Amino acid sequence: MPTSPIEYADASPAVRAVFDDIKATRNVPDVNNFWKYLARDPALLTRTWQSVKEVMQPGALDALTKEMIYVAVSVTNGCDYCIASHTAGARKAGMTDAMFGELLAVVGMANETNRLANGYRVPVDAAFEQ
Amino acid sequence: MPTSPIEYADASPAVRAVFDDIKATRNVPDVNNFWKYLARDPALLTRTWQSVKEVMQPGALDALTKEMIYVAVSVTNGCDYCIASHTAGARKAGMTDAMFGELLAVVGMANETNRLANGYRVPVDAAFEQ
Amino acid sequence: MPTSPIEYADASPAVRAVFDDIKATRNVPDVNNFWKYLARDPALLTRTWQSVKEVMQPGALDALTKEMIYVAVSVTNGCDYCIASHTAGARKAGMTDAMFGELLAVVGMANETNRLANGYRVPVDAAFEQ
Amino acid sequence: MPTSPIEYADASPAVRAVFDDIKATRNVPDVNNFWKYLARDPALLTRTWQSVKEVMQPGALDALTKEMIYVAVSVTNGCDYCIASHTAGARKAGMTDAMFGELLAVVGMANETNRLANGYRVPVDAAFEQ
Amino acid sequence: MPTSPIEYADASPAVRAVFDDIKATRNVPDVNNFWKYLARDPALLTRTWQSVKEVMQPGALDALTKEMIYVAVSVTNGCDYCIASHTAGARKAGMTDAMFGELLAVVGMANETNRLANGYRVPVDAAFEQ
Amino acid sequence: MPTSPIEYADASPAVRAVFDDIKATRNVPDVNNFWKYLARDPALLTRTWQSVKEVMQPGALDALTKEMIYVAVSVTNGCDYCIASHTAGARKAGMTDAMFGELLAVVGMANETNRLANGYRVPVDAAFEQ
Repeated sequence: MPTSPIEYADASPAVRAVFDDIKATRNVPDVNNFWKYLARDPALLTRTWQSVKEVMQPGALDALTKEMIYVAVSVTNGCDYCIASHTAGARKAGMTDAMFGELLAVVGMANETNRLANGYRVPVDAAFEQ
Repeated sequence: MPTSPIEYADASPAVRAVFDDIKATRNVPDVNNFWKYLARDPALLTRTWQSVKEVMQPGALDALTKEMIYVAVSVTNGCDYCIASHTAGARKAGMTDAMFGELLAVVGMANETNRLANGYRVPVDAAFEQ
Repeated sequence: MPTSPIEYADASPAVRAVFDDIKATRNVPDVNNFWKYLARDPALLTRTWQSVKEVMQPGALDALTKEMIYVAVSVTNGCDYCIASHTAGARKAGMTDAMFGELLAVVGMANETNRLANGYRVPVDAAFEQ
Repeated sequence: MPTSPIEYADASPAVRAVFDDIKATRNVPDVNNFWKYLARDPALLTRTWQSVKEVMQPGALDALTKEMIYVAVSVTNGCDYCIASHTAGARKAGMTDAMFGELLAVVGMANETNRLANGYRVPVDAAFEQ
Repeated sequence: MPTSPIEYADASPAVRAVFDDIKATRNVPDVNNFWKYLARDPALLTRTWQSVKEVMQPGALDALTKEMIYVAVSVTNGCDYCIASHTAGARKAGMTDAMFGELLAVVGMANETNRLANGYRVPVDAAFEQ
Repeated sequence: MPTSPIEYADASPAVRAVFDDIKATRNVPDVNNFWKYLARDPALLTRTWQSVKEVMQPGALDALTKEMIYVAVSVTNGCDYCIASHTAGARKAGMTDAMFGELLAVVGMANETNRLANGYRVPVDAAFEQ
């Protein structure tokens, strides 16, 4: 029996409080499925949202750059849900088609050269260690 | 017998031409180990450099953003050589300590939530498919 | 043309013998899809079942712990079939909702801190090597 | 220039407070390298420790089971630092040689069958979806 | 809004030229979806096709061996699209059912022993370094 | 305390029997480190060797092709021990420098296009499903 999502109407006050904060922070009418599934474990939901909120707020890096990094990791791991949700997030933050194309080109190239470095067992240059 | 690197002094004219272009493009006195190992296969060396040069040049995304995306992929894959070389590349392109800290925080969080989405088998929201 | 499964009625005696042992060992009326697909290669089917049977039997670790470890690996790799089948196996072995929530929380955290250790290139403490 | 660790003697009050809590919670004379590197980013250090502390405390799953799950993920990802530190953690929590052997046997088997399920493109059984 | 594919009838002359070369090289009536999606980024499409064409042509390794290596990587990464397309490519190049079974058996075994080597932290033999 | 290897002189009769079979099958004077570490768990040692012996024997695929597939998986996973040992194994089975170069080129390209397929969320062509 797979986990089923919890909708706002059926949520406990603690879960509703997190859902409300997500909606207010992101200015969206409803939370996406990820949070509805995590709501099965209120402690996990609360901790994950607090961490995501803190990590993804603009700081030394802006929101768009952070969303693109999220996409890069998700594409590398092959997490389809996360690719879909964070590509949407990056587009909302201003990612154009051209930026998306370049993002994927870099992700593809990095995945290739990571394996070339592995396969040739290239030692780290002394210059990178100093 | 592991592959050994090819130094400039021992390189064929074709390999030297690639090494020269890398040095000129990046304004460095020598190429890093990665290229010296790939030089064992001149066709691979040439194609990989041409692709990296094209992909990493500033376009819709600037050089720093591209280097940070490269780091994000390399950290996710656990490629130590690539982490060392592209962290150096990102710092050269202007990455501060604060930016590096936020980059790794996003990479860590994305790797965590990728697995939470997998584990709860969260279906993609209809809103992300339109 | 993708591989198609082999049902019991169409199976060779050698395949039926494996299916019978799976059903008897697990006390289930039919084998799940994984085994029906592996049946295309009877040697692989036989070897894989013998290994799984030996590895998953209770020993120093009980059956539930072993199923949860299986889920942890499958979630990390993003193998949806294996997440579904071994989550079902873990629940059958006694995993509660609270245990499942904590399992995924640990898996998520480990995937995050694995990358923080990679990104900061943390050397192994001497204390862990002795 | 790689990140260098921060020792207690050189740490800010905020970092010392986290180090003190780690030492008290785990009853150890010093924190391990992971925390000394994360200390370069006090916000990351604080958030990561709070999450690890919360996630790893005994609950529906005991401390040993949680440490073994951590090892399973780290081995799957090939994070050598995390394998070393969490194998040490699991042994401290009571993992015997026999338990360690069975843990790795399950991790190995799961990594194998994950790929067999991928390669044969096995569809999830209807029974696992209900 | 996910990326949509570009059909030949709607393609620019530059994209059509790549599509034509793919069709001629592979002797197929239409390109597969992968290329129709990459066509959103003509520079990526062109570079990727040139690299794939160069890498996959028979050389020291024949076409079938190269396709099976492609399948091995795709199965390890869990890329369902690539498993489906390169298994089809390998079959077209002559892969029999028996070869496919052995290919997946090796891939499964390698994924298992990779983790056993990680988990036991096995040092590389001096004989392999010389 | 990390696992230490077991040398032949210190091995139990059961472990010696496996070591003897490895040495005879491969015609080598000593087993490599991998087996000396697995010897800590004689059941795992025996089962793993039996499986490796069965899977790696020439069949529909020859020994060299199987070793190159092993390298492809190990490079993709970044398992340095396995890259070193199976590259040595492939060379012993006849892999030339040119073959090794092409092997890594295919592995690199597959790792790149796997992520492009993920990132563009390319649906499997109907032709591949029939």
